[in-house]
Amino acid sequence: MNIPRGFKTASSKEKISPGSSWFDVSAWFSRTRCAAAGVFTRNRVQSAPIKVSRKHINSGYAQAILVNAGCANAGTGTPGIRDAQMTARLLARAVHISPYDILLASTGVIGTRLNMKAMNNAINSIAEKIKKHGSRPSNFRLSAKAIMTTDTFPKALSRKISFNNHHITIWACAKGAGMIHPNMATMLAVFLTDARISPPVAQKLLGDIVDVSFNRVSVDGDTSTNDTVYLLANGCSESPFVKPGKPGWSAFRDAFTGMSVELARMIASDGEGAKHLITIHVEKARNKTQALSVARTVATSPLVKTAVYGMDPNWGRILAAVGRSDGSVNPDKITIFIGKYKVCHNGRQCLYPEHELRKILKRNTVDIRILLHQGQDAVEFWTCDLTEKYIHINAHYRT
Amino acid sequence: MNIPRGFKTASSKEKISPGSSWFDVSAWFSRTRCAAAGVFTRNRVQSAPIKVSRKHINSGYAQAILVNAGCANAGTGTPGIRDAQMTARLLARAVHISPYDILLASTGVIGTRLNMKAMNNAINSIAEKIKKHGSRPSNFRLSAKAIMTTDTFPKALSRKISFNNHHITIWACAKGAGMIHPNMATMLAVFLTDARISPPVAQKLLGDIVDVSFNRVSVDGDTSTNDTVYLLANGCSESPFVKPGKPGWSAFRDAFTGMSVELARMIASDGEGAKHLITIHVEKARNKTQALSVARTVATSPLVKTAVYGMDPNWGRILAAVGRSDGSVNPDKITIFIGKYKVCHNGRQCLYPEHELRKILKRNTVDIRILLHQGQDAVEFWTCDLTEKYIHINAHYRT
Repeated sequence: MNIPRGFKTASSKEKISPGSSWFDVSAWFSRTRCAAAGVFTRNRVQSAPIKVSRKHINSGYAQAILVNAGCANAGTGTPGIRDAQMTARLLARAVHISPYDILLASTGVIGTRLNMKAMNNAINSIAEKIKKHGSRPSNFRLSAKAIMTTDTFPKALSRKISFNNHHITIWACAKGAGMIHPNMATMLAVFLTDARISPPVAQKLLGDIVDVSFNRVSVDGDTSTNDTVYLLANGCSESPFVKPGKPGWSAFRDAFTGMSVELARMIASDGEGAKHLITIHVEKARNKTQALSVARTVATSPLVKTAVYGMDPNWGRILAAVGRSDGSVNPDKITIFIGKYKVCHNGRQCLYPEHELRKILKRNTVDIRILLHQGQDAVEFWTCDLTEKYIHINAHYRT
Repeated sequence: MNIPRGFKTASSKEKISPGSSWFDVSAWFSRTRCAAAGVFTRNRVQSAPIKVSRKHINSGYAQAILVNAGCANAGTGTPGIRDAQMTARLLARAVHISPYDILLASTGVIGTRLNMKAMNNAINSIAEKIKKHGSRPSNFRLSAKAIMTTDTFPKALSRKISFNNHHITIWACAKGAGMIHPNMATMLAVFLTDARISPPVAQKLLGDIVDVSFNRVSVDGDTSTNDTVYLLANGCSESPFVKPGKPGWSAFRDAFTGMSVELARMIASDGEGAKHLITIHVEKARNKTQALSVARTVATSPLVKTAVYGMDPNWGRILAAVGRSDGSVNPDKITIFIGKYKVCHNGRQCLYPEHELRKILKRNTVDIRILLHQGQDAVEFWTCDLTEKYIHINAHYRT
């Protein structure tokens, strides 16, 4: 795993909620101030860390990110805001930077207050570890793991690209699992790079890549109060400024897009209780809006998701979901593929080898391709199947 | 059970799909032509019986309704339409009425053709039974049972009201279970009355009652291709015409509304795998649209539904669902009650007796009351919890 120059990280074993996992807090720290960008949930109910971080990121700069699992610090009113501010102050004091250069994100139970004593301990232990061995790749691996809630595997990756004879490194991690739906569900992601980039370019880039990746994932249709994606770019590669129009820009943007799509797919495949990663391709749509509306409706249909779980090529449920998704679809022009097999043509059943189809549905990735035959626009969207385990996790675990 | 004068019914044991239950076809028949009204799914993909029945009902009159389970006859193209037309012709011949006076509805697997040999046998057996003992109350009970798919109990009820010194009887039945969502999921309902009523008044009445009952039920958010509600009024009570403005109109309308709300609640409580009937009350909304949008989002949230199943008073999930439902809600004004206990005030946790709340959640009906404090509008909405059994039914059963 490649780590961008000038970044350090550490995590703490301090438990933030009584029922939480063994590591609950991670912080990433840059030795210089970074151009900073953030994209937040569109839920009207927003967590305290988001409210506080929105103000901090207004300057366009930041130097550290702190993420905790175990408590969402949402639905906690003014006391919750004060807790988030105090968290930033505690970390600022420990690593000797301004509290306004700290960005926060939380995930966990909504409506309970942060345990500030535990946060204080966590921050002190993190500051010490960062000083001692903060740049170790193993720390970065652990930091992606510590922010997990019901995720079953940590989601982190890195890329090295060449820009104007300089090596630029990008590292990113994410957590997902439940409450995942377009417009960012309890989905947290952190991008770190040593590229030199201006704050407005960073913000535009982050918005664009979120739109084609994290905003196209749905696990259960529930959008969280806490979704956050951050990008810190510290310029330590000493490359010239990366910006649109410069040679190498598109390779840089493609690397970011590829990484975020990859993380989005990991999130979908690790949806709570998931057995299948489902990719929904909507093609030949009148426009992007129509394509997205169809993709989103199919991706959130419990009947489609349970059919995939049951390995049942029940294309009628897909057709029914398309039919209710958007007033402008023409039912008599819809073609549906499951894997390579055409199951529905012009809104009617095709002959297909049921046995072969069931084999395709036994794999852990399934492609559903829907052609609307009304135009030329296309989108991809990722989701997972709906299983008894999702119910079990969510009936008996507090998010 | 009171049966409106002049109506008969019978059901057939003929199996329409190999995996279906023991009774699959019911028909209701009036000795005279009736004022007829129908409300259909808003899914763009519509079943063949709906396409055919829409034409038949255009006249404002009909004399019989035939419903089959086991095959939806949707996604079947022109051949499916011909099958539906043939079904009407077969019944017309057997009971000596015009095929254009027959209304059809189907529920079952999408994309497969109707077994016309089985339908023919079913229709002949029904015609014979109708002649012999079609007016027996036991037949009416059975007809509500025969249209069930994954329903666990039949849903039928009747009312007797007095109108201008005449007794008017209304009988109604419905099926629900899965693919249930506003704008009518695989939800079929039949209303029969011996009131005298004009076709336009019948149509307006039916539209109005569907709007506050069946359109406010959600089991899984999936809207079917086959939803249908029919009303036949044959005038055999010999009452004067029932219409708005006449004395007794409001009692008549209230009886209908009460019956359809009751059927809607039965459908929600019998949602696939359901353990709880959840009633969502949204109050003090800016307008009906806002109230409905909030109610619908909470009712379809898998996280809210699994929390109720797990008897976990996790009000944070309700708050998060309200927050993503409608751009105009004010998170700092939201109050939430579960049963009689206030759990959230102004978007923040209240002190409540957790133990007592868990007791409330152990009952099989749960009330969630959400106050938006932005206006005076209110709606009620019904749904059920989401359980492992829903997954099991839908992963391993073809709808």
